[in-house]
Amino acid sequence: MNVGVVGLGRMGFAIAVRLLNAGHQVVGLDHSEEIKKKAAEIGVTVADDIKDVAEQTDVVWIMVPISQVDTVIKDVRPHLKAGDIIVDGGNSFYKDSQRREKELSADGIFFLDCGTSGGIEGEGRGFCLMVGGDEASYTKIHPVFAAIAAPGGMGHIGPSGAGHYVKTVHNGIEYGMLQAYGEGFQIVKEGAFEKNAIDLEELSRIWQVSSIIRSFLLELTHRVMAQDQELHDISGELAEGGTGKWTVEQAHEAGVPVPVIEAALKVREWSRETGGNYATKLVAMLRHEFGGHAVKKLK
Amino acid sequence: MNVGVVGLGRMGFAIAVRLLNAGHQVVGLDHSEEIKKKAAEIGVTVADDIKDVAEQTDVVWIMVPISQVDTVIKDVRPHLKAGDIIVDGGNSFYKDSQRREKELSADGIFFLDCGTSGGIEGEGRGFCLMVGGDEASYTKIHPVFAAIAAPGGMGHIGPSGAGHYVKTVHNGIEYGMLQAYGEGFQIVKEGAFEKNAIDLEELSRIWQVSSIIRSFLLELTHRVMAQDQELHDISGELAEGGTGKWTVEQAHEAGVPVPVIEAALKVREWSRETGGNYATKLVAMLRHEFGGHAVKKLK
Repeated sequence: MNVGVVGLGRMGFAIAVRLLNAGHQVVGLDHSEEIKKKAAEIGVTVADDIKDVAEQTDVVWIMVPISQVDTVIKDVRPHLKAGDIIVDGGNSFYKDSQRREKELSADGIFFLDCGTSGGIEGEGRGFCLMVGGDEASYTKIHPVFAAIAAPGGMGHIGPSGAGHYVKTVHNGIEYGMLQAYGEGFQIVKEGAFEKNAIDLEELSRIWQVSSIIRSFLLELTHRVMAQDQELHDISGELAEGGTGKWTVEQAHEAGVPVPVIEAALKVREWSRETGGNYATKLVAMLRHEFGGHAVKKLK
Repeated sequence: MNVGVVGLGRMGFAIAVRLLNAGHQVVGLDHSEEIKKKAAEIGVTVADDIKDVAEQTDVVWIMVPISQVDTVIKDVRPHLKAGDIIVDGGNSFYKDSQRREKELSADGIFFLDCGTSGGIEGEGRGFCLMVGGDEASYTKIHPVFAAIAAPGGMGHIGPSGAGHYVKTVHNGIEYGMLQAYGEGFQIVKEGAFEKNAIDLEELSRIWQVSSIIRSFLLELTHRVMAQDQELHDISGELAEGGTGKWTVEQAHEAGVPVPVIEAALKVREWSRETGGNYATKLVAMLRHEFGGHAVKKLK
């Protein structure tokens, strides 16, 4: 199929690579001259403008910061016709996605909201795709999703908004898990037991082999610990997108208690006020490992 | 080697099986006639008493409820000689293990504290073993640990107490992770988004394939959801051993903030007062899946 990818940042570029590898045509759009050059080198047809993308493709995949999604839609809309499909693969708020779907349906344009997980390893391994919206449109461009996802790692998860809704909750769970690991490793490092008596590289290695808490995030923890378990030069300040906050807000709205996810969210705020601690340093490193998120160095 | 296993409950029995499969001799002790019969059937030499165990074996592996460890040590001690080795494979408090090591060292007996993770799947897959205490003793009975552990899933982690210390923290992390998943799935099920619009079996399946939050516990979540995602008849009351509480106490003692692990601990208390909610029902089911812990049925 012919796929337009709007936004060739870290995630958009990885998606373009996977589409090309699966034999699809990719028309890419980005502001950066450097990215455009790199994209052309791997076989992306670099578009001059959004009109160019819309006219050459069957589906427009939007992979831009959430604040720019409405602008991209406004720009591309005049060049689309009834039956065309837009996918928003970013971390948009699900109510925005539901609004966009409704607005575009006036022109007969289908809008799918796709939660995308997998981080920087997704390019090689394939992503996890949770798709909401019109099921027939999902089926129609199934080969596009299949090219981007890891084998089996995708699904039409519900009506409009469902994809971004569950991705938000996914990130909320991620907040809780990251903080649980951070706290645990800090207790071992700085806790009541003889300080620094336990090698965190060896501990994370054996936990990852066969313990109950083995996970992808623990695998990354071992990778961090193998390089540096002091984390002296790493800032413990933790950034966040909107997803953690939205998860807690959605839970409150529905009367679902989420003390663990909420505690993890509060730690992030606290970390930015105070500089954080060993636990948040480890979380910062893990976010860097899986998502390429920037880590502030103290020196 | 000749290994005595005192306590052939769920975990002790699995350990005996793995030792036999690796070609070791196992002398087992248990109160239950039913268990003794089953043990004899798989090739365990069933002992009449603790003296019998001590005299026939090179190492005594204790796998009993933590309240019975001191009694077992008291009973076995007169039958051991200098250089003999005891391993406590249960979830003892690390300060108790340090005390026991010190007491036994007066007789020249070595005491190793071994945190054991892996649950009911450990029998087939192999356990995760975190061992504290005299390193030469660890090396001496290395084949015993290697038979019980998954390939590579073991290590001498530090001085006396270190094994049980890190196992306690492991369980604290587990508390946090379990509760994070519980909260996340409850938000999807009962949250602001259209109720029951999203199939939790499909969601847990695709998350487990390639998302950032994939883990052993999420694999079990998918197994639970494939059978029953309503959990109507499951009690949300959560039991606990001492480890979650100890983790929080150790953290407080050392001035390490652990808001997420602490929140998860408080939820367990709350669940027993109130009967819990969907999140704690899921946690109860997961504890049953990995550890065989009892789940109360509501009907």
